[in-house]
Amino acid sequence: MGKKRVMLPAEELDLSTVKYEPEVIDAPHLTGLTFRLFVKILEAPLIGAAIISYMKKKNRMIEFLRSTVIPEPPMYKPEFPPQDPEPGTILLDEDGNPEDRVELALKCLPDYDSASSWNGDLSQFRYWKIRDYVYGYRSKLVTPSMVAERIITVIEEFNHKKPPAPLLVSFDAEEVRKQAAASTKRFEEGKPLSILDGIFMAIKDDIGCYPYIMKGATTWKDETNSNNEDAVCVSRLRSCGVIFVGKANMHELGMGTTGNNPNYGTTRNPHDPERYTGGSSSGPAAIVASGICSAALGTDGGGSVRIPSSLCGVVGLKTTYGRTDLRGSLCGSGTVEIIGPIASSVEDVTLVYAAILGSNPMDRNILKPSPPCLPNFPSIESLNAMGSLRLGKYTPWFNDVHSTDISDKCEDILNQLSKTHGCEVVEIVIPELHEMRTAHLVSIGSAMLNGLNPDCEDGKGTELNYDSRTSMAIFRSFTASDYVAAQCLRRRLMYHHMEIFKKVDVIVTPTTGMTAPKIPPSALKYGETDIQVTGYLMRFVIAANLLGFPAISVPVSDTGFTYAISFLCQEFFLSFAQKLSI
Amino acid sequence: MGKKRVMLPAEELDLSTVKYEPEVIDAPHLTGLTFRLFVKILEAPLIGAAIISYMKKKNRMIEFLRSTVIPEPPMYKPEFPPQDPEPGTILLDEDGNPEDRVELALKCLPDYDSASSWNGDLSQFRYWKIRDYVYGYRSKLVTPSMVAERIITVIEEFNHKKPPAPLLVSFDAEEVRKQAAASTKRFEEGKPLSILDGIFMAIKDDIGCYPYIMKGATTWKDETNSNNEDAVCVSRLRSCGVIFVGKANMHELGMGTTGNNPNYGTTRNPHDPERYTGGSSSGPAAIVASGICSAALGTDGGGSVRIPSSLCGVVGLKTTYGRTDLRGSLCGSGTVEIIGPIASSVEDVTLVYAAILGSNPMDRNILKPSPPCLPNFPSIESLNAMGSLRLGKYTPWFNDVHSTDISDKCEDILNQLSKTHGCEVVEIVIPELHEMRTAHLVSIGSAMLNGLNPDCEDGKGTELNYDSRTSMAIFRSFTASDYVAAQCLRRRLMYHHMEIFKKVDVIVTPTTGMTAPKIPPSALKYGETDIQVTGYLMRFVIAANLLGFPAISVPVSDTGFTYAISFLCQEFFLSFAQKLSI
Repeated sequence: MGKKRVMLPAEELDLSTVKYEPEVIDAPHLTGLTFRLFVKILEAPLIGAAIISYMKKKNRMIEFLRSTVIPEPPMYKPEFPPQDPEPGTILLDEDGNPEDRVELALKCLPDYDSASSWNGDLSQFRYWKIRDYVYGYRSKLVTPSMVAERIITVIEEFNHKKPPAPLLVSFDAEEVRKQAAASTKRFEEGKPLSILDGIFMAIKDDIGCYPYIMKGATTWKDETNSNNEDAVCVSRLRSCGVIFVGKANMHELGMGTTGNNPNYGTTRNPHDPERYTGGSSSGPAAIVASGICSAALGTDGGGSVRIPSSLCGVVGLKTTYGRTDLRGSLCGSGTVEIIGPIASSVEDVTLVYAAILGSNPMDRNILKPSPPCLPNFPSIESLNAMGSLRLGKYTPWFNDVHSTDISDKCEDILNQLSKTHGCEVVEIVIPELHEMRTAHLVSIGSAMLNGLNPDCEDGKGTELNYDSRTSMAIFRSFTASDYVAAQCLRRRLMYHHMEIFKKVDVIVTPTTGMTAPKIPPSALKYGETDIQVTGYLMRFVIAANLLGFPAISVPVSDTGFTYAISFLCQEFFLSFAQKLSI
Repeated sequence: MGKKRVMLPAEELDLSTVKYEPEVIDAPHLTGLTFRLFVKILEAPLIGAAIISYMKKKNRMIEFLRSTVIPEPPMYKPEFPPQDPEPGTILLDEDGNPEDRVELALKCLPDYDSASSWNGDLSQFRYWKIRDYVYGYRSKLVTPSMVAERIITVIEEFNHKKPPAPLLVSFDAEEVRKQAAASTKRFEEGKPLSILDGIFMAIKDDIGCYPYIMKGATTWKDETNSNNEDAVCVSRLRSCGVIFVGKANMHELGMGTTGNNPNYGTTRNPHDPERYTGGSSSGPAAIVASGICSAALGTDGGGSVRIPSSLCGVVGLKTTYGRTDLRGSLCGSGTVEIIGPIASSVEDVTLVYAAILGSNPMDRNILKPSPPCLPNFPSIESLNAMGSLRLGKYTPWFNDVHSTDISDKCEDILNQLSKTHGCEVVEIVIPELHEMRTAHLVSIGSAMLNGLNPDCEDGKGTELNYDSRTSMAIFRSFTASDYVAAQCLRRRLMYHHMEIFKKVDVIVTPTTGMTAPKIPPSALKYGETDIQVTGYLMRFVIAANLLGFPAISVPVSDTGFTYAISFLCQEFFLSFAQKLSI
């Protein structure tokens, strides 16, 4: 009796009464034998359910959904209210050719200055930007085939490390040589397909890329789904002439934030091999951060592009929900996942984004994000568009990090943006962050479970890693009415955020609440569960997933890898993120 | 192992291989003490879950969702592909005044002939149509106050029956007199608000109607939600001058198909007091069938308007999903429910529909049904639009009824439509009807449970009727991934139906698989569970709910109550339903 809690309608909530509640996580950190034993108990019929119920109650995770009256009707997918066009941007045609979009995106960039940018030393090709390759190829200073040989050598080195720490889970040197030769030939004939011709990219293993079987970095997914075709996004890149080096390593099925993967070996952070890359797009971020590829595609349902980008010191874009066509990936039926580019600069992220974007026509019946647009550098300059930007900061949240180095450094960036460009920093309040985490967890977990259930019924559940099995056991405890209640919360949170976006253009946070965690040696063979670390890594990222907004993570620390700052936008306010790193 | 089943993508399904599978229901019929005992066991922690699991397995109800690979992504709400305007219709402005829409609807009707229609005997006012009242009022042959007195007398008679069998659960004679006096005054001043001024209507108890508290025919809902304001649809009727006689009885919270209600007494079928009215809109259908009101509003999430309309021999319209604004009703957060009118003729249903329609602006971000339109009788005549109609019939389903009287009679109607109007009857195949039932049950059950959970946490669960408690126990067993899987099925079924609508304009079925069941005297005090009867009553109705299409049920038997035929349309193909009964 008396457990019921009635929420006020979202529009009646008095923000001045909202207090920031730090996330409190109470769960054990387990590795090795203890972890395996724990998972077996968790999967046992009665005791497992009891433990999960206890854990959920202790962390106030789910149970409140059943006792709370949420006045809003459910919002099952991000619903975007109509929006005004942004100043200083140009529109892209999502139904046009990717080659044309990339061409247009190129025109939005400041001029390329070969004198200051070009470094002809092939042994030093790390962090060549896309336009460096373009310059090298078109000036005949280097060919895609020459680059391919260098890349193949490095990847093979990575593949032979002990313990294994592969960047790629599928790799075929001959296939890479073949694509590079075709690209080289196009350049010889003076007919490159686009500015992306001859650009080397890695594709996360949950996105289809011919001729590789898509496994989501499991050991068995190819037995139940032997798809080796190009996903829609990949086929757009292929038509631009991109060369695919293989399928990038990842946290198994995207169900984790560290990149730990006992199946193929855990990708190491290029800046410190003792540390995680972050996940789930561990391979894509690491292969870019290693300078081997200019860009990679990841997927992001709960920070999976931005977290490893942050921890590896590269740029990651979480695209608007529905903007990228998910057909041909393992994420097709979710309501929070997108495909997003990772690259070493905002400029390169922009070029790849221009190529891959374009919604699934089936989604257009209901999803209506504004038409895709890109920041137009010259017009931003002339409009002084940066100066009018209002940057929203929720200070107690912003500062709720593992080490104040992170928040201090991100604050420096805000001050810099104010001083240099005249941006205004506006203090905001974001209510119901705890409810947001729950709504996100139920949404993503239920879609994942739905996708995996039939394989589990076929006995594949025990072939998953132990940390995936832990997640699955938790997901199994969510009821259908929890799902509906979570969607009611989604509508509230959308309301709160749209109100905030009346006051500010962007919400700024650190990308992650901690820097790259150390890899416990005991976690290499069977993985680990460390929900405290998960909490820190996911602290700031999920609003973009639950509500569909785009968000970009840009590294800001001097060392190039420890911290990153994230910008969550109403639509596609890349303008000043671009400014930051061009 | 080996339990997994992989569905072909919907577009690859070969319809020639589809075999109709009769619905097999294996569940006990329980009333009285046995029923109460059964519910207590069902609610007990372990044994209850075991029984539910056994019942679900036996009826292949839910478990298959977990072992089936459904290739389609989820569709959480009906998504309507763009549609062509229909011939012979006129568009209505959903943002305009309801009075103007009713005026326009009136113009679509054939001329009113007072000589053949008007029956001035007030003691015989049964089945007066709306235009009969209009004629009587405007010709000063009768006043709303005169009618009110007659109605009040009859309602009070019903309210004093033993055992109680009220048409209304909230009724206030003075309130009715007050509204009637105001209407009478408007007529005296020559200023009626619309053609609906002075028309008496009953409102189902899950729709808000001032000054009555909305209880959903529970005994306690007013303690947790004391809303007594007009729902949006009701306020539209009020602005047209409608007089509300009170809140109509219903199956508790809409959770049943018979209309059994131990809380207030079970409404009796006006054609045979030993039989049910059908539900859940029992009161609205019965009050119209009794001739007391010209029309009533019901809600329909799984046949709740059409089933009682069919069993009581009146006309019921299940409107397009999203067409009626659900704010102010208890159904606001579902994905299958609508508000729909019940009246004694298609003509009156049309007039009331014109008044109440208009979507919730919040839904317009994602729901895009075609603009509302009405069949324009004169232009249908001149276009001979009836002759070009293709009527789809899935014969083995059509014939899967409790007594072949029903299918024979409905078939007669089809033959008549062919012969008289030249309509073409086309044999169709509707695959996956079993999957449709499951998808519907999970969708509606989860939304209901979500709405009731907080009250149940507060101890109100045991104040529900025993049949509601049975349903709740089943709904509690649905997992979040069941919910997602059900929505994947929804997308498949939408695909199948859109393919069918390329071949036919309407899908025709009996409304129900059986006529009004007898009320077991043992079921009056504590209700009953009879899933076989539920199966027969819901057999043909749920596609309209799951997929959002409109459907109209029109009585066709000579006796006026036993059978009805239903027309499911892609958009609003009322034309020939109208023809049937004008």
